[in-house]
Amino acid sequence: MADDLAKKGLEVRTALFGEKAAVAGNEYLKQFDEGFATFLNDQLFGGIWGRPGLPTKIRSLITMTALMALGRGPELRLHMRGALNIGVTKEEIKEMIIHISQYSGVPTAVEAIRAFREVTEPRKG
Amino acid sequence: MADDLAKKGLEVRTALFGEKAAVAGNEYLKQFDEGFATFLNDQLFGGIWGRPGLPTKIRSLITMTALMALGRGPELRLHMRGALNIGVTKEEIKEMIIHISQYSGVPTAVEAIRAFREVTEPRKG
Amino acid sequence: MADDLAKKGLEVRTALFGEKAAVAGNEYLKQFDEGFATFLNDQLFGGIWGRPGLPTKIRSLITMTALMALGRGPELRLHMRGALNIGVTKEEIKEMIIHISQYSGVPTAVEAIRAFREVTEPRKG
Amino acid sequence: MADDLAKKGLEVRTALFGEKAAVAGNEYLKQFDEGFATFLNDQLFGGIWGRPGLPTKIRSLITMTALMALGRGPELRLHMRGALNIGVTKEEIKEMIIHISQYSGVPTAVEAIRAFREVTEPRKG
Amino acid sequence: MADDLAKKGLEVRTALFGEKAAVAGNEYLKQFDEGFATFLNDQLFGGIWGRPGLPTKIRSLITMTALMALGRGPELRLHMRGALNIGVTKEEIKEMIIHISQYSGVPTAVEAIRAFREVTEPRKG
Amino acid sequence: MADDLAKKGLEVRTALFGEKAAVAGNEYLKQFDEGFATFLNDQLFGGIWGRPGLPTKIRSLITMTALMALGRGPELRLHMRGALNIGVTKEEIKEMIIHISQYSGVPTAVEAIRAFREVTEPRKG
Repeated sequence: MADDLAKKGLEVRTALFGEKAAVAGNEYLKQFDEGFATFLNDQLFGGIWGRPGLPTKIRSLITMTALMALGRGPELRLHMRGALNIGVTKEEIKEMIIHISQYSGVPTAVEAIRAFREVTEPRKG
Repeated sequence: MADDLAKKGLEVRTALFGEKAAVAGNEYLKQFDEGFATFLNDQLFGGIWGRPGLPTKIRSLITMTALMALGRGPELRLHMRGALNIGVTKEEIKEMIIHISQYSGVPTAVEAIRAFREVTEPRKG
Repeated sequence: MADDLAKKGLEVRTALFGEKAAVAGNEYLKQFDEGFATFLNDQLFGGIWGRPGLPTKIRSLITMTALMALGRGPELRLHMRGALNIGVTKEEIKEMIIHISQYSGVPTAVEAIRAFREVTEPRKG
Repeated sequence: MADDLAKKGLEVRTALFGEKAAVAGNEYLKQFDEGFATFLNDQLFGGIWGRPGLPTKIRSLITMTALMALGRGPELRLHMRGALNIGVTKEEIKEMIIHISQYSGVPTAVEAIRAFREVTEPRKG
Repeated sequence: MADDLAKKGLEVRTALFGEKAAVAGNEYLKQFDEGFATFLNDQLFGGIWGRPGLPTKIRSLITMTALMALGRGPELRLHMRGALNIGVTKEEIKEMIIHISQYSGVPTAVEAIRAFREVTEPRKG
Repeated sequence: MADDLAKKGLEVRTALFGEKAAVAGNEYLKQFDEGFATFLNDQLFGGIWGRPGLPTKIRSLITMTALMALGRGPELRLHMRGALNIGVTKEEIKEMIIHISQYSGVPTAVEAIRAFREVTEPRKG
């Protein structure tokens, strides 16, 4: 069963962040601490994201909601990219930002809009 | 258009909290400040909850998410009742709590479980 | 100079909370820890509240603002009573609540309104 | 009346941020979402900042207080610039930072001092 | 290995909260959700509290620190009781509260003092 | 006694941040406000860090805990450097991060890991 969680965790992370980033992210965490990397992959992404009670898109949407409400900028950008990868639409993210502005305050929305633009706009080059 | 928002706001609040509580809630806020009561009904519930970009059930779910993450106990209870009234299932609320525990910390989940039990258990009498 | 701060601290706390509560509050803190009670009276109320750069009423208003924004219910009630004692008006507190609702979220305003009503309404009995 | 709020909102934003930044800020928000840009201009800056119950300087001071207490760095910088534009003095901002350090913790003051220096010091060049 | 974590988790929870409360707490969580109860016992108390890198007393002290800083009142009371059960002294808890007051603000200390008194004072009866 | 606190404060700050940074930090704060610089040196570092009830290493560990839980990135980096200077080990900081992830949420741990790597990795150059 530990193997199932590990597999499921990698699967969820790959769907969200792409195969390359999923592997790199895990390596980064393993360099910090092997046990914590396993915990996050197996328990968080395998065990919790993998529960059947809510579809992954909804999990993605509520994850972004919590990250915006708590003002966790870098993680919010990461999960916005993840959300778009699994088919959450730009419109849905936008609506979430506007709705939650009234629950965690307009400044958290302004920060989320900044993140949204960085994530959705074509890079200049 | 101000009339439309007022009507829509009352409609959303009635669906969430029931007619009696929707009216009483508005009266309570009007006693505090007429303008702020109008703002909350028209702009928040009419204007924002009423936007077409996300279904009301999803708005309810992300509202509870923000309230749990920010540790707003009384408001969380209110919106859990609202969620059940518009057809969000107990299972969905439960899944949200478990999922978000990893984003805002286990103590916010323990508090949300307390709220969940108060809201879902038959009152002793 | 330590004596000056002690005197000023007692003075500020008496103006805010009344003589009886100022003394009782200090006793309560001294039972917890003598040094911390002295720190709060001398440094916080004497040293910081006593600085000339902002009038006490403005200090009271920004204190309530921080307490509301951070969701510190019991302390907010205490400082609302203090504010009214030194001449901050109900209207000013009300305006602060409505204004800050957009910066820390509507749920913090709902909690502050609850506090406001408890503090300003004549007790039933 | 919607027109009045729109006009008042632009007026308040112009006083705070200057005409150029007020217009640019609105454009930026409109590109994100037309409705939300209107909400912020009309309801927040026109409707709430425009209420007569508190002078604009006090509104500016309590806005900075909430932003500091909640650790909203970029917005704090923006509103510090706004505060100086409408005549809040450096001394008053400084006093607010020192006072609030005891309510939201010294680290929020250290961050606010960083913002204060960026906003008040002549740019090197 | 899952069995080891389960056993370790129960052991840690029993040391902290006593056998009766450890079992009752688990039952309460299982009624909410079997999988989440297992997660908390096995992963949080068995897997994380059971890691060798920090002694349990230090884990208890930093847990109380986080709970105080984040304003999680009921959980703080629970872990204060747990701390005293495993030999953290009243003096150490007191020092933590005074120290952290400067990092999360005096109001979080006032709330923690309230919790401290409830937990350490002989009940009236 | 004020002199004792001043001396003790400088001593604590020197142990944590090194003599050069301790002096520079004080100068920086004095340029902001003389009185607040004195308050932080004498009362916070001299008076509170200097209390005998907890060893400095434990004070350092709980300070980092609060900074991580509250998401205060720059201050967390500063105190991680301080912790290593007074003999807190990398392993202990790592354990604190992993432990607290369950109390303030995984995103605060991810941010703390970022800080940990910046502070502990040899600079490229």
